[in-house]
Amino acid sequence: MRVRKKSWTQNVLTEAIEKGYLVDQPQNYKGQWKKTLNTNILHVEIGAGKGDYYLGMANLYPNQGWISIERVSDVAAYAMRKVLEAPVENGRFINLDAQVLEEWFEEGEIDVIHLNFSDPWPKKAHNKRRLTTNDFALKYEQLLSDLGQIQLKSDNRVFFEDSVVMLSKVFELEELWVDFRSEAHDEDVITEYEQRFIDLNQPIYRAIWRKK
Amino acid sequence: MRVRKKSWTQNVLTEAIEKGYLVDQPQNYKGQWKKTLNTNILHVEIGAGKGDYYLGMANLYPNQGWISIERVSDVAAYAMRKVLEAPVENGRFINLDAQVLEEWFEEGEIDVIHLNFSDPWPKKAHNKRRLTTNDFALKYEQLLSDLGQIQLKSDNRVFFEDSVVMLSKVFELEELWVDFRSEAHDEDVITEYEQRFIDLNQPIYRAIWRKK
Repeated sequence: MRVRKKSWTQNVLTEAIEKGYLVDQPQNYKGQWKKTLNTNILHVEIGAGKGDYYLGMANLYPNQGWISIERVSDVAAYAMRKVLEAPVENGRFINLDAQVLEEWFEEGEIDVIHLNFSDPWPKKAHNKRRLTTNDFALKYEQLLSDLGQIQLKSDNRVFFEDSVVMLSKVFELEELWVDFRSEAHDEDVITEYEQRFIDLNQPIYRAIWRKK
Repeated sequence: MRVRKKSWTQNVLTEAIEKGYLVDQPQNYKGQWKKTLNTNILHVEIGAGKGDYYLGMANLYPNQGWISIERVSDVAAYAMRKVLEAPVENGRFINLDAQVLEEWFEEGEIDVIHLNFSDPWPKKAHNKRRLTTNDFALKYEQLLSDLGQIQLKSDNRVFFEDSVVMLSKVFELEELWVDFRSEAHDEDVITEYEQRFIDLNQPIYRAIWRKK
């Protein structure tokens, strides 16, 4: 029997789990994230890609806790390769599908949910797979603390327009930008991914909602 | 004593009042607009400029009633000059300050309020003069019929961003466009004023709210 060689991504993910940077049983931390990360403010990013926002924000705000979730293993491995080189003490990464978010977090446990450049699922028939459906909005509402926020950023016009309408049904729209990077916003890191759109002169759309 | 010659704008406005196209005592029509215009649907545009939207929409929807309000007499005169040449049977024009809107319309009398390219009053200290303040939003809420709408269009980024946040506190955001003219929208006429922005490749922002 021929044993198939493990890919670098599998090796990286395994090492990241062993070192505790990647959490494979997030339900074990339910209700304990702030205590675990020694913080009063918990951020959760859904759809973290290669982890640049995670790394950038966790370093910019070392006293706050950062959890980033990326479903695709081959993508999450890039994030973990960076983390293995420069560990994030105040954060954890999750390589699972956020569909079961409520199994990992207690009601009111999260202070800010970040949705950055989420998959726009442009076809009408696929809209229901978006992270900004009414179903997800109701999950977010349950998991957010009082006055908790959703912060969304996108380059995709139609996804943004639809998402603003959808999320505003459940949350109070607090801020809206139709060209976020036309002004300096040092409070929010620019990833390489985002910089590509800025370099192409495409507007970055952003909105913030607060729990009613 | 030297008698000052009347300007063309004064002559035009006087003639428009005599012919009934311009209403100088709108409070006399309070609660009677739909009956007067023989329609079930009443639109009110605040800040009508030179009347191109008024003329275009009243002609596009001849079975609906159109009231347009423009505060500045020298601007309203341009609208009335056009109306004297091509009368609008299903509409009336008002050359007064919309600040006292509730004196002219009954509660629930208006079906759609249109705000097109309103003065953005960009200075912070002047924001309170905008047509999208909380005070105005509460007036609109009172005057709109059940399921009545506000339709707003603007070229001004910051005015639009702020207005979406403000009006969404009182009304349910129903639709949002961050580049409205990137798709065809034959249901809404393009004025010369709007066309200038489109020609400059500037996005047109638009939103629609519904009464909760």
